[in-house]
Amino acid sequence: MTRTPDPADLTARLIRCPSVTPEEGGALQLLAAELGAAGFECHRVDRNGVPNLFARWGAKGAARTFGFNGHTDVVPPGDPASWTHPPFSGHRQDGWIWGRGATDMKSAVAAFAAAAIGFVTETPPAGAVILTITGDEEGPGKDGTRALLDWMRQQGERMDVCIVGEPSNPDRMGEMIKIGRRGSVTFGIEAQGLQGHAAYPHRARNPVHALLRLLHDLTASPLDAGSPHFDPSGLQVTTIDCGNPASNVIPEKARATVNIRFNDLHTGDSLDRMIRDRARAIAAETGVEFSIATDISGESFLTKPGPFVDLVAGVVRAETGIEPVLSTSGGTSDARFVKDHCPVLEFGLVGHFMHQVDERVPADQVRQLARIYRRILESYFS
Amino acid sequence: MTRTPDPADLTARLIRCPSVTPEEGGALQLLAAELGAAGFECHRVDRNGVPNLFARWGAKGAARTFGFNGHTDVVPPGDPASWTHPPFSGHRQDGWIWGRGATDMKSAVAAFAAAAIGFVTETPPAGAVILTITGDEEGPGKDGTRALLDWMRQQGERMDVCIVGEPSNPDRMGEMIKIGRRGSVTFGIEAQGLQGHAAYPHRARNPVHALLRLLHDLTASPLDAGSPHFDPSGLQVTTIDCGNPASNVIPEKARATVNIRFNDLHTGDSLDRMIRDRARAIAAETGVEFSIATDISGESFLTKPGPFVDLVAGVVRAETGIEPVLSTSGGTSDARFVKDHCPVLEFGLVGHFMHQVDERVPADQVRQLARIYRRILESYFS
Repeated sequence: MTRTPDPADLTARLIRCPSVTPEEGGALQLLAAELGAAGFECHRVDRNGVPNLFARWGAKGAARTFGFNGHTDVVPPGDPASWTHPPFSGHRQDGWIWGRGATDMKSAVAAFAAAAIGFVTETPPAGAVILTITGDEEGPGKDGTRALLDWMRQQGERMDVCIVGEPSNPDRMGEMIKIGRRGSVTFGIEAQGLQGHAAYPHRARNPVHALLRLLHDLTASPLDAGSPHFDPSGLQVTTIDCGNPASNVIPEKARATVNIRFNDLHTGDSLDRMIRDRARAIAAETGVEFSIATDISGESFLTKPGPFVDLVAGVVRAETGIEPVLSTSGGTSDARFVKDHCPVLEFGLVGHFMHQVDERVPADQVRQLARIYRRILESYFS
Repeated sequence: MTRTPDPADLTARLIRCPSVTPEEGGALQLLAAELGAAGFECHRVDRNGVPNLFARWGAKGAARTFGFNGHTDVVPPGDPASWTHPPFSGHRQDGWIWGRGATDMKSAVAAFAAAAIGFVTETPPAGAVILTITGDEEGPGKDGTRALLDWMRQQGERMDVCIVGEPSNPDRMGEMIKIGRRGSVTFGIEAQGLQGHAAYPHRARNPVHALLRLLHDLTASPLDAGSPHFDPSGLQVTTIDCGNPASNVIPEKARATVNIRFNDLHTGDSLDRMIRDRARAIAAETGVEFSIATDISGESFLTKPGPFVDLVAGVVRAETGIEPVLSTSGGTSDARFVKDHCPVLEFGLVGHFMHQVDERVPADQVRQLARIYRRILESYFS
């Protein structure tokens, strides 16, 4: 009989693998060994030097397949001398586990792996459990979860639902499940006018003025008032640059960057059209030409409240005694890729200490998360 | 009897003095020698290394005193190899005088000096003629005409009216007299907000947005519609800079420079108050703090049409057959200092080739300008 690992112990062992993006650091090897010993079929799905692990218990194409997505890569620790305990020590003291990845998110990977091993070993379900674990969530993310999902499509592998283990709780375990995320798109805008003397503006075309009009149009009123499950979309002009040192000269060019975090009332393309239409109208009036580079880093998505969300929320409520808020707040995660594959939500630890010096987690919180994951699996397959 | 110099010849001799700001180059010495020989009392009024010449014919404090202001300094010639004839050669060929300062404005200084010498020698007036010639009009201008006027005040010297000899005609001799100039003020504006993540703008204060609001307020509508003798005031945002490379970060600071060319409906102070009031209102709403540095390089001024303007316009019309436009257009000149001393207007050559390679002037144009100046003197003292 397989020994089910202790999630706190497995967290500490994963922390000891120095897996700063894109280093594997032994973390995926350790996971594959644990999961393989419990009967999981494991495949490394590396792409362009990024290490990724696919693991399935149960038959491929089973009628019911539960999925989990997470990552073992971590952000750099900065100066190790700043840490109370070395960042890759997995030091345990007074109920805490210390080290880079303790919160984000080796702990959740350990919790789910332990829960899944215990579940399939003790009460084998009629279905399959899949883990997709990437070694590049903190980096460019081009060859991480995307590579796993591409590979699964090629192989005919499928998840019916998926939980992403990112820290989802702002302060207390159980208070928040993320059922969607806003999208993010960045526009690099360059305005080209005609240089001239500040005293003779009729002989010049000031690109700063045209850019000001465009940016004022964009910032003067909110993009929307929010939607049933989303906060209002937000637009930030993160920089404007011209670099003209002469106060008596009208410059030739000016540049700005605009970042939009958008809800389900927009898409990257609809915002791109909106900005280009406004720029075109201002260009026609002013003679200043705009060139716009658009980078859509993720579309918004929403897993609508329904049986899957109810199941997870019910377990969280039962285990923690707290009614979780269903939220779509915050930045992006790999759920933005998984949402094209199957319904996805995010539930993990409390997000304290993420990316900070002295990142650490209470061992009891990791064990509680493992209990929640276990009950979710039991409930899903019951 | 004093020999009256030929204005074209004196122009060429002045050009041969290499008087790039702030070098005297022998130009003021040459003038002082010519004027002194004709009975002008000459004083060098140098200040902080800047050479200046004051010259008066007639009694100090005479009942009627006619003044002229000009400069013998020139902008650098750039690469002498680019010139058809060396920039300080004063080369004469086919009726042209070549060299740096041929247009701006050794020629007008020579024309007035020649006209004044001929006038006081041949028909001594009941009054005085004063020349204030600076060696720093093209540079910072702090110790040039200002120093001359300061010295005159201390000495009890006075001009009743003054002509500044800057090139005033866009294309043809006689078409334009400048009777005023717009003022110029430059604002350096810095907005200080609170840095943060672009996905969590409620925890940050974006200084770019506050600055955008201020600049949009300033550029959305004209400052005025012009006044009886002035074009509308003009406002140009000449640069905006932030320098934030991260599109997911709301920056802490943003800076802009605003230059205003203003007519007699405003003063530097009134515009300063207007901008500070608007900034204060936006700061109160947004929590973004503004710091504003104001540099008033010159107030607007107007010598209202009247006897002096009529006299000059009448002479110009009689000599050229053209009805001169009374204009307040263009950039600043030392008239901005003289206007605090006495009524001032600008009349000089056609402004072609100013500050350019191969600067040159037709000798006949210089002689025509000298005739105009001479008739103005005759008319003034008749």
